Formats: sequence, C-alpha cells, structure tokens
Amino acid sequence: MSYYFPSSSECGHRSIFGNIQITTMAGDYLQFSLADIPARGVVEPHSHPNEQMGLMISGTLDFTIGDETRTLKPGDFYRIPGGVVHSVRAHDEPVRVLDVFYPVRPEYR
Amino acid sequence: MSYYFPSSSECGHRSIFGNIQITTMAGDYLQFSLADIPARGVVEPHSHPNEQMGLMISGTLDFTIGDETRTLKPGDFYRIPGGVVHSVRAHDEPVRVLDVFYPVRPEYR
Repeated sequence: MSYYFPSSSECGHRSIFGNIQITTMAGDYLQFSLADIPARGVVEPHSHPNEQMGLMISGTLDFTIGDETRTLKPGDFYRIPGGVVHSVRAHDEPVRVLDVFYPVRPEYR
Repeated sequence: MSYYFPSSSECGHRSIFGNIQITTMAGDYLQFSLADIPARGVVEPHSHPNEQMGLMISGTLDFTIGDETRTLKPGDFYRIPGGVVHSVRAHDEPVRVLDVFYPVRPEYR
C-alpha cells in the first residue's frame, strides 16, 4: 500500500445516478471522482455545497450548469460553484470525465 | 465568456520547468493545471505547501514522491501532501497529466 500511489483496489468504487460508475480518491482537502457514464447516461439536476471542477477525458455530453448548456468534448474544463444546480446528458458513446470537489465528500470515500 | 465553461483563451497558458506547457483554471478553492510534457521531459524535485493530486491522461512517466518511485500510465492517480518533495521523468513519448491543487496557486492564474 502507498498513500502516494493508491492502487485501484484502494480507491472507492460506487454507482451513482443508477448506472454511472465512479472511482474515487480523497486527500486531506481534495476529492477525485473518475466517472464512467454509459452512452446516453443521465446525471439528474442536483447541487451540493462543494465547489466542483472537471475535465472531459473521452466522449461527448451536454452539460447544464445553472441556466447555461454546452456540448463538451475531451480536453474541455468546467467549473461549478457550490450550490449551483447542474446536470449531464451523454451522447451516443460512453463518456469518461474527472470530477474534483472541495472539500472532500465523505460519502465518496 | 462563461464562468462555468471557460474557453481555452480564458485559461492561463504558461511554461514551467523549461519545456512543459500548462493550461490552468482556478476556482474559488481548486486549481487545475493540465500539463503537456514532451518526451523525456523532466520536472525537477520541488515542493509547495499546496496539496496536489493528479490523474494520468496519456503517456507514461516515472513519478517520485518522497522516497517512492512508480511508473504511471493513463488512468493512474497520485496524491502528494503539502510539503512533500516530488519529481517526474517522462518516458519516450509525450505525456498529458492533470494536476489539481488546493488552495489556488496565484502564480498559475
């Protein structure tokens, strides 16, 4: 075991919003959640007090934050202040995206 | 312009450690730095008080944190507490990696 280099088995593995698989890792302050969204998968509108920022890794999706909607592709960033409602709708292929939160989400440990 | 969906031209663009290009985005608490490291590029040993966690996007490299060294590949995570010395040596192809810091690094805005 290594704190610096956690193996997959040392990360958290959960399902959210039904069929979205997340691999999670928490630090002292930062929370990572690497999300695998199936084709046409949906994250329903929700919010949380944590700041969230993310990076698209593969696939494309429509991301709604507040009253703005954009189609995002690999390499795109997004930025969600705490408390702002957001939702996602994947296009016709699987999507991988890294979500990062501050502070840590205890339910993701 | 959109706070939620910053375009590339709204991100920071800097060179660090000579030939490593970074694209940066800061939130209120979180700092992203998407780093493009050329083949055989080197990040010299350094440390900072910020917590740092990261995700390998493409390529492979040797990452040293404290007294541990591992070869990392796409999908691997790493986790560096504030104050711990770390360095990187890319293998024979370019590497893309996302570094995330807490708190924000003002010099990366």
